[in-house]
Amino acid sequence: MDIEARLAAMEARLRKAEDQLEILNLLNTNGPLVDSATAQPAGELWVEGGGYSFTLPEGGDKRLVAPDEIAGMYGWPGHLDLVKTGCAHLTATPKISVKGDEAEAVGYSVVILREEERWFLWRAAVNHWTLRRTDAGWRIVERFNRALNGSEESLATMRKVQTI
Amino acid sequence: MDIEARLAAMEARLRKAEDQLEILNLLNTNGPLVDSATAQPAGELWVEGGGYSFTLPEGGDKRLVAPDEIAGMYGWPGHLDLVKTGCAHLTATPKISVKGDEAEAVGYSVVILREEERWFLWRAAVNHWTLRRTDAGWRIVERFNRALNGSEESLATMRKVQTI
Amino acid sequence: MDIEARLAAMEARLRKAEDQLEILNLLNTNGPLVDSATAQPAGELWVEGGGYSFTLPEGGDKRLVAPDEIAGMYGWPGHLDLVKTGCAHLTATPKISVKGDEAEAVGYSVVILREEERWFLWRAAVNHWTLRRTDAGWRIVERFNRALNGSEESLATMRKVQTI
Repeated sequence: MDIEARLAAMEARLRKAEDQLEILNLLNTNGPLVDSATAQPAGELWVEGGGYSFTLPEGGDKRLVAPDEIAGMYGWPGHLDLVKTGCAHLTATPKISVKGDEAEAVGYSVVILREEERWFLWRAAVNHWTLRRTDAGWRIVERFNRALNGSEESLATMRKVQTI
Repeated sequence: MDIEARLAAMEARLRKAEDQLEILNLLNTNGPLVDSATAQPAGELWVEGGGYSFTLPEGGDKRLVAPDEIAGMYGWPGHLDLVKTGCAHLTATPKISVKGDEAEAVGYSVVILREEERWFLWRAAVNHWTLRRTDAGWRIVERFNRALNGSEESLATMRKVQTI
Repeated sequence: MDIEARLAAMEARLRKAEDQLEILNLLNTNGPLVDSATAQPAGELWVEGGGYSFTLPEGGDKRLVAPDEIAGMYGWPGHLDLVKTGCAHLTATPKISVKGDEAEAVGYSVVILREEERWFLWRAAVNHWTLRRTDAGWRIVERFNRALNGSEESLATMRKVQTI
């Protein structure tokens, strides 16, 4: 390979490594925003029109649209109760797969909540994210989140780790 | 340094960064496969003949050989009970050390299990992984896993973080 | 851009990616050292004179100076009790922001502790780290850690994720 070809190949590989690291930073920004009720910036981690579909605590599921519906949820009284009690929406490092200007990730997330002198796992879920490179950096397109309850939908979400 | 030497040095450094990121993806693939009883692909995260040594829930330890014995475990009735209940074998990001075509990692893992409306830590352990670059990408050679119970073996596994 | 400029640009970008990965390794070294009472090396993850400020279990907070006061804490009877019981000081992957020879990170940490046949979250906290490149690699300058209890200080620490 001549120098031009080697430079171009390295630039492409380097960009892909940077993308994986930037997506890791993006996903790890969500928790601290949400847990401090910093609502609007949390909604803006998504592209406009993107979605967050999740299992409701009472069962069933819901899809909220970014940025306003997602940001809106972080003003709900139930969410503000979590914030006042002391909580962490913790994203475990997922498998991340970058393909050009699109990416996918599959991994777990938990919500840690204080209860007197201890903390417990109020929620545990599996997630499939699709992501897109924008002029402002990487953003979430869809976050599909299902509680860990043995449902076929939760298991199918886990199995996506094979094909991303 | 001339251009040739700078290109070669950067290619080596870039490969090492890519290796750390690929190993992170490999280790984060294990949980979603295991927790959805996707047994054979889980076993194939190891090289053939590789091993997984872990503390048994009832005490003592066991080493299973990849891929078949490891995959086989994910069909055990006890494991399928976890899957139906809702669980996550979550690998916390370890320290990863890449040396050419071999690598090591030391870090924690937990098993999160549902119990009625909550989840709890059914298991918590420390791990020492050895890994190898293969034609099919990075694979696990040995995963040595010990429950966090104060045993000398668990503490010695943690201390490996100093020398990898 | 000519070849010299492209090489220089790539070298700078590559170093930044390597820095993020090295910081991830540094932060993930702390837990296994601390949980095996490997005290002095734990204190030396900081620059000399660096600090670790944390919420005390009984309330209030304390700042210990590196390396000796931090290392000293890991010889306290209360800490050795955790080690003998079986524990993990687990650092969740934070958002990491590298700016030249300085860096910052914001993210969660938990202490997992054994209790008979299970493990529970003895502690959960948010952290803001400042870090510095030294001749010996990246080191922690300050770790500011506050328990997740809804306090204004804990929420302000989370919000730093927006500006790093």
